[in-house]
Amino acid sequence: MKRYRNGEVWDFEMGTPVSRDRADVILGLDGGAAATVCVCISAALPSFAGRLPNPFPVLARAVAGFSNHNSVGESAAKETIEKVMAEALLKAGSNRSAVRAVCLALAGVNHPSDQERILDWLRNIFPVRVKLFVENDAVAALASGTMGKLHGCVLIAGTGTIAYGFTEDGREARAAGAGPILGDWGSGYGIAAKALTAIMRAHDGRGPPTFLTYEILSMLGLSSPDELIGWTYADPSWARIAKLSPAVVSSAEAGDEVASRILHDTVLELTSSVKAVVQRLDLCGEDGKDSFPLVMVGGVLEANKSWDIGKAVVDCITKTYPGAHPVRPTVEPAVGAALLAWNHVMSNLVSDCGREGIVLDS
Amino acid sequence: MKRYRNGEVWDFEMGTPVSRDRADVILGLDGGAAATVCVCISAALPSFAGRLPNPFPVLARAVAGFSNHNSVGESAAKETIEKVMAEALLKAGSNRSAVRAVCLALAGVNHPSDQERILDWLRNIFPVRVKLFVENDAVAALASGTMGKLHGCVLIAGTGTIAYGFTEDGREARAAGAGPILGDWGSGYGIAAKALTAIMRAHDGRGPPTFLTYEILSMLGLSSPDELIGWTYADPSWARIAKLSPAVVSSAEAGDEVASRILHDTVLELTSSVKAVVQRLDLCGEDGKDSFPLVMVGGVLEANKSWDIGKAVVDCITKTYPGAHPVRPTVEPAVGAALLAWNHVMSNLVSDCGREGIVLDS
Repeated sequence: MKRYRNGEVWDFEMGTPVSRDRADVILGLDGGAAATVCVCISAALPSFAGRLPNPFPVLARAVAGFSNHNSVGESAAKETIEKVMAEALLKAGSNRSAVRAVCLALAGVNHPSDQERILDWLRNIFPVRVKLFVENDAVAALASGTMGKLHGCVLIAGTGTIAYGFTEDGREARAAGAGPILGDWGSGYGIAAKALTAIMRAHDGRGPPTFLTYEILSMLGLSSPDELIGWTYADPSWARIAKLSPAVVSSAEAGDEVASRILHDTVLELTSSVKAVVQRLDLCGEDGKDSFPLVMVGGVLEANKSWDIGKAVVDCITKTYPGAHPVRPTVEPAVGAALLAWNHVMSNLVSDCGREGIVLDS
Repeated sequence: MKRYRNGEVWDFEMGTPVSRDRADVILGLDGGAAATVCVCISAALPSFAGRLPNPFPVLARAVAGFSNHNSVGESAAKETIEKVMAEALLKAGSNRSAVRAVCLALAGVNHPSDQERILDWLRNIFPVRVKLFVENDAVAALASGTMGKLHGCVLIAGTGTIAYGFTEDGREARAAGAGPILGDWGSGYGIAAKALTAIMRAHDGRGPPTFLTYEILSMLGLSSPDELIGWTYADPSWARIAKLSPAVVSSAEAGDEVASRILHDTVLELTSSVKAVVQRLDLCGEDGKDSFPLVMVGGVLEANKSWDIGKAVVDCITKTYPGAHPVRPTVEPAVGAALLAWNHVMSNLVSDCGREGIVLDS
């Protein structure tokens, strides 16, 4: 599938049945650790009494593979992103000339130089008038809980983990999110790696016996902990290892102390990430009681079991910051990215026209 | 460079100037995490009063890249091993027909099935009468400290770490050695990964400030901890990351508490590996005071600085097991592998002829 840039038409746009009175659209893209999702929404969102419609209307949605440039390389990442955006536009019966704004929220965007490089590339794809935003994928997750408003703190814990926060005056801070080698121990990968380590320690006499041995070996169809070495290094991809983390939750629920210790440590790790962000941004105000949204995203926090990691983290945080208001998003992060772009466009419109802003809350 | 097997001549043996009265030789190969070393020694080692000559006479030595099949794949590993053995024979002015025994000591040999697979392959290369041994690379390191005798415990801590022990009646046990994902925290990689994690935690407010930030960023020519993410995942090879570990020793010596804590934890990890092996094999006897060699190998244990990890580990172990007799090998592990094979050949000779065995000690 060839694509043409610099004002030329993408070849997959050829023959797209586009209506003549085509409405403006906005693209939101979430390139996380597991997949890349792009949604296309209308730039003219209806809003009643300052609230957005529920359920939220998405014109089209397209999904592709990983687009973390640290993991798949920059050119493969760009190829994936370009393809998934084109597919979303195609499915919406639209094309690039109808695009008003684009927000790419990408894992692996950790530095202003990452942002600049990707913005330069995006500018070659879209007409000059299109508003472009490139953010870390955590920012889209925050926006998915605040309906596009950048304020508060998001905690993501899936395969990886990160805490990211914004103040209303635009300051931002993050904690963790540096991947497994750099100590993201609150992640699904971290939980699973600790469980695998505990099995090896029990096996060779460095640690206490644990039910995790039985639980994980049977999950993988292996007969001995020695075989875990071959299994692990045959494909040490983060997502593959993170998939073992539910076994730690079930072992802890079955009363295994080693598994419980791993989950307690996970709660402390995740809590410390959120607290670092809240403190640096002073989100809780001078008296420590200011209200702010705490958006909770990711498989590790969603576990709706008797051992509920997300609930334990919220309990720890609200003890210190009673104003933290936990939010479980009802839209996906790609919609958060689109809303973030929409919010920017609307604010400009408001400041251009001197009208009252639309109040957005979840 | 083509090679022929099944009794045919390796093509690089063609034209080798081999003397007609060629003496029997033994090959010892050490395929560790950093390189593959093969030595060729005489099968008729002189021995005076039951001791081996010092310095130890090596006929030839050849070096090649990694041969851990978990890391480079099995066919690349075999290619490397075959090539380095041929090179050692060539340098010794010998060839396969003079080989009496071969011992391959390879990282990644963790299971009897690994051993069997590699033995099957070796049997195609050498004549039937050649004695073949395949062991984990830790076994060669032990033999390098005991001059070929399998008794006692070896602790290796370089890029990776493992403790491996043997009793005189042939029982064996190991602890750790399962690589970084499975918790080898006493390794050079583990030390470095903890240091990188400490830098990220200090940077985002989850941990105390540390001198490691300055030390490691200047070592790598980076200007901010954020840049460590790109540096780390650009090539997360274990050896590359482990090379940062000396910065932790120098930071600890400069009084940095975070670095000191990492080194103290490393000592506990390494001590616990040795203790697990000693306990499982009962190397210290019923009264806990039996004497056994504790062979210490690898860059992490060699650091001859004021913060001496190796000395701290020995101090911890001899407190519990006063009979542990620390040995720093004077020959390299490849020579240990060769001596192990030589020892087997000699024992067979002794039992065949009913003679007294030669006493080997370091």
